[in-house]
Amino acid sequence: MTKVLPNAQLTAEAYPKVKRNSNFKVLDSADLKYFQSILSEDEIIESQSSEELASFNQDWMKKYRGQSNLILLPKSTDKVSKILKYCNDNKLAVVPQGGNTDLVGASVPVFDEIILSLRNMNKVRGFDPVSGTFKCDAGVIMRDAHQFLRDNDHIFPLDLPSRNNCQVGGVVSTNAGGLNFLRYGSLHGNVLGLEVVLPNGEIISNIDALRKDNTGYDLKQLFIGAEGTIGVITGVSIVAAAKPKALNAVFIGINNFDTVQKLFVKAKGELSEILSAFEFMDRGSIECTIEYLKGLPFPLKNQHDFYVLIETSGSNKKHDDEKLNSFLSSAIDSKLVSEGMMAKDKADYDRIWTWRKSVATACNSYGGMYKYDMSLQLKDLYSVCDAVTKRLDEAGLIGDEPKPVFKSVGYGHVGDGNIHLNIAVREFTKQIENLLEPFVYEYIASKKGSISAEHGVGFHKKGHLHYSRSDIEIRFMKDIKHHYDPNGILNPYKYI
Amino acid sequence: MTKVLPNAQLTAEAYPKVKRNSNFKVLDSADLKYFQSILSEDEIIESQSSEELASFNQDWMKKYRGQSNLILLPKSTDKVSKILKYCNDNKLAVVPQGGNTDLVGASVPVFDEIILSLRNMNKVRGFDPVSGTFKCDAGVIMRDAHQFLRDNDHIFPLDLPSRNNCQVGGVVSTNAGGLNFLRYGSLHGNVLGLEVVLPNGEIISNIDALRKDNTGYDLKQLFIGAEGTIGVITGVSIVAAAKPKALNAVFIGINNFDTVQKLFVKAKGELSEILSAFEFMDRGSIECTIEYLKGLPFPLKNQHDFYVLIETSGSNKKHDDEKLNSFLSSAIDSKLVSEGMMAKDKADYDRIWTWRKSVATACNSYGGMYKYDMSLQLKDLYSVCDAVTKRLDEAGLIGDEPKPVFKSVGYGHVGDGNIHLNIAVREFTKQIENLLEPFVYEYIASKKGSISAEHGVGFHKKGHLHYSRSDIEIRFMKDIKHHYDPNGILNPYKYI
Repeated sequence: MTKVLPNAQLTAEAYPKVKRNSNFKVLDSADLKYFQSILSEDEIIESQSSEELASFNQDWMKKYRGQSNLILLPKSTDKVSKILKYCNDNKLAVVPQGGNTDLVGASVPVFDEIILSLRNMNKVRGFDPVSGTFKCDAGVIMRDAHQFLRDNDHIFPLDLPSRNNCQVGGVVSTNAGGLNFLRYGSLHGNVLGLEVVLPNGEIISNIDALRKDNTGYDLKQLFIGAEGTIGVITGVSIVAAAKPKALNAVFIGINNFDTVQKLFVKAKGELSEILSAFEFMDRGSIECTIEYLKGLPFPLKNQHDFYVLIETSGSNKKHDDEKLNSFLSSAIDSKLVSEGMMAKDKADYDRIWTWRKSVATACNSYGGMYKYDMSLQLKDLYSVCDAVTKRLDEAGLIGDEPKPVFKSVGYGHVGDGNIHLNIAVREFTKQIENLLEPFVYEYIASKKGSISAEHGVGFHKKGHLHYSRSDIEIRFMKDIKHHYDPNGILNPYKYI
Repeated sequence: MTKVLPNAQLTAEAYPKVKRNSNFKVLDSADLKYFQSILSEDEIIESQSSEELASFNQDWMKKYRGQSNLILLPKSTDKVSKILKYCNDNKLAVVPQGGNTDLVGASVPVFDEIILSLRNMNKVRGFDPVSGTFKCDAGVIMRDAHQFLRDNDHIFPLDLPSRNNCQVGGVVSTNAGGLNFLRYGSLHGNVLGLEVVLPNGEIISNIDALRKDNTGYDLKQLFIGAEGTIGVITGVSIVAAAKPKALNAVFIGINNFDTVQKLFVKAKGELSEILSAFEFMDRGSIECTIEYLKGLPFPLKNQHDFYVLIETSGSNKKHDDEKLNSFLSSAIDSKLVSEGMMAKDKADYDRIWTWRKSVATACNSYGGMYKYDMSLQLKDLYSVCDAVTKRLDEAGLIGDEPKPVFKSVGYGHVGDGNIHLNIAVREFTKQIENLLEPFVYEYIASKKGSISAEHGVGFHKKGHLHYSRSDIEIRFMKDIKHHYDPNGILNPYKYI
């Protein structure tokens, strides 16, 4: 039974140990007057009763809720610069916000920070079809970037289930990986240039950079994945890939995770350059999704312990289908695959992807979810789910109402050694949270994994970096934060 | 007629305006004693008469020559750490050196800096065939990394003409792009982790990082392309690609650069996922190379104004050849290609590549060369060669002996918008240098290009970054240098 919690508890109440930094000024009417002097009416939201104000304060998972009374939505880099300079001079704390689809509480305020939304910076700045260089404002929605590029025979080199809401600048600030990382690689390789406004209002930009540029330290790299803690990304230049002429997908049922790994190695070897996604979901992920997508026919006849979605994309449909068919036949012959369904047209292809892309929303539909996103060596990848399920089960927390946990499920990107662990709950409770943390982090550290593969740190994992990073690394990170943002006004209470 | 200059002029004499920094200590017997106490005999070269000492002091182009009397070749990260700590405490300047194949005078001393060679750190540390993660010491020669990975059905995601000498750590420090950048992308995307020794001896490492890791600022990125100015890379973890099962190459003659561009766009569209290199050479490049490779039969019947080498790599020879043949037929039909030769076997494939890989060595064989490496928009890419040739010609410097310039040629990576301009000279003269600089840089700046696409900055381009970077970027770079290396002992007189 899906239900929706009305609103998240205020973060300040749910985490009473986190205190507002008293160095930050409390917004007053003089500040407001200044912002009104540089911004037009549609660039400010400040009424406390506004519903919009509420939606900016709360994260997508409804786990965190801030108390900001002011949203600024500037339309130009120059205005972002003026805002930040003023805030820095006056020690007003600021949360930069993109599409607010973030999963670690990074894009909403903790207390009364001003929300700086990039929503109004939503123009494509240019595209060069020869080099594939695409330039846009940070606030362009990923769906729109995809559409623009598709119209120009290219694709944005990253796709996410949240594509209809997330923004290009937010994606870069999060260093998201997404569904085709296996094929198109990391944003650290694909982003060519960034335009960034620093806390003091200075604009640092290499947005006109070409494909290769070795003139000094690659400054833009620090902002990729910095979650708006050292600067606000206002423009992005990225290399778009040529649009594949042929796409195919297959949905497969598999009996155990060992076989998932074997199938992956086989796919890498045989599908090689046309392999563009290798995603997996466990039984629980699909059970949640079947209930959520009521009415949509499931692609397979039977249920299995694991499901794999393999996507190919290439330039020749006949060649690709030949490769995929031959791969599948031999996988069936060698008993790696229990049951499979290959898309016969675009509608099938989309339906297959729907089962993967809906998992997070499905898990969130029972009230909320605790969400972890981890990298592990492939052999260890699923073991964290087993460990967590066992732990919650032993505590008697999983099951039918009134038990608080509906299901604990795992799914993600096999190709990147990246698993998402969702604990779908009917309510957020300290008992569950205390069972999960630091247990999950300690487990990951014991396997030398990363406690954040692609979702970032935000509020959720602040203070936990030592599970994946050394003291000296953390010291250098703090130095960087202090150097760029000496007053600490950008996205406080989070990250480092 | 090829000739070889005996030795480069001392850099200190050729560039008298550059003065030794008097803050740096002059090496004395107490220092030597310390190094002898921590290193074994085969980890130190210090006799002034040693020929080896001379080879460490001079760059591959024989354009720069330092006067170091001490080469340290430690065998472990721990020893690198002790060396740097001692040098930092005592203000002894240090040049880190890999294979010394660098092209901007970055890897040799300017005065009496101690040379810290990574040559003895040459072990593979590990390889995971499932994820493709390859870990090695910085001093592993690229050829050996390729060989190791080929034996394990993978390839190193970068190849260079200098592969027999260059080292993995040096390649990362240079942020080299190489011959297959188009396919495998940037080191900023492919390097997973680095082990780095900082000037104060601290070791900062995330070499065990997995494919995806978003736990804080991506510190390793700053060291990629930092040319050893803020730390010495001692270990590298990189993602290796699956070894292509099929390779092919075609060598093509073309009448003008406009057609080169058209052919590139066509290749991107039609060869798409199997396109792994698109290289071009002008008539002069090939004329130099024909003379240098005397005896090797040229693949084409006629000479042309431009040549293109297209490489494909994929998982199915039949499919790839079908795509390449269909591409070529249609290119010939539409008169884009004047003459072409497709490799019919591995020997042919290697021969075709020899014509591309030998250009730099060929140009250097007349005595020496001035070398520029630039990124430009594709439409402007070749124009810089025309402009430089015209300028040297008008000054009466190009031609038969005794004119000092043999030829000015251009070649490079069309796919990356990256051109190498080589001015093959019989001798280095101030007259040539003054005609070239700042002219070349000003030209590139006027086209909004980069004055260093992949070769870096080194000694050659120090002080010229403002042609491609803003004041604020340069200020931030200086801050970074100062923060990591407050005494400035690492690779002084260079970079920023």
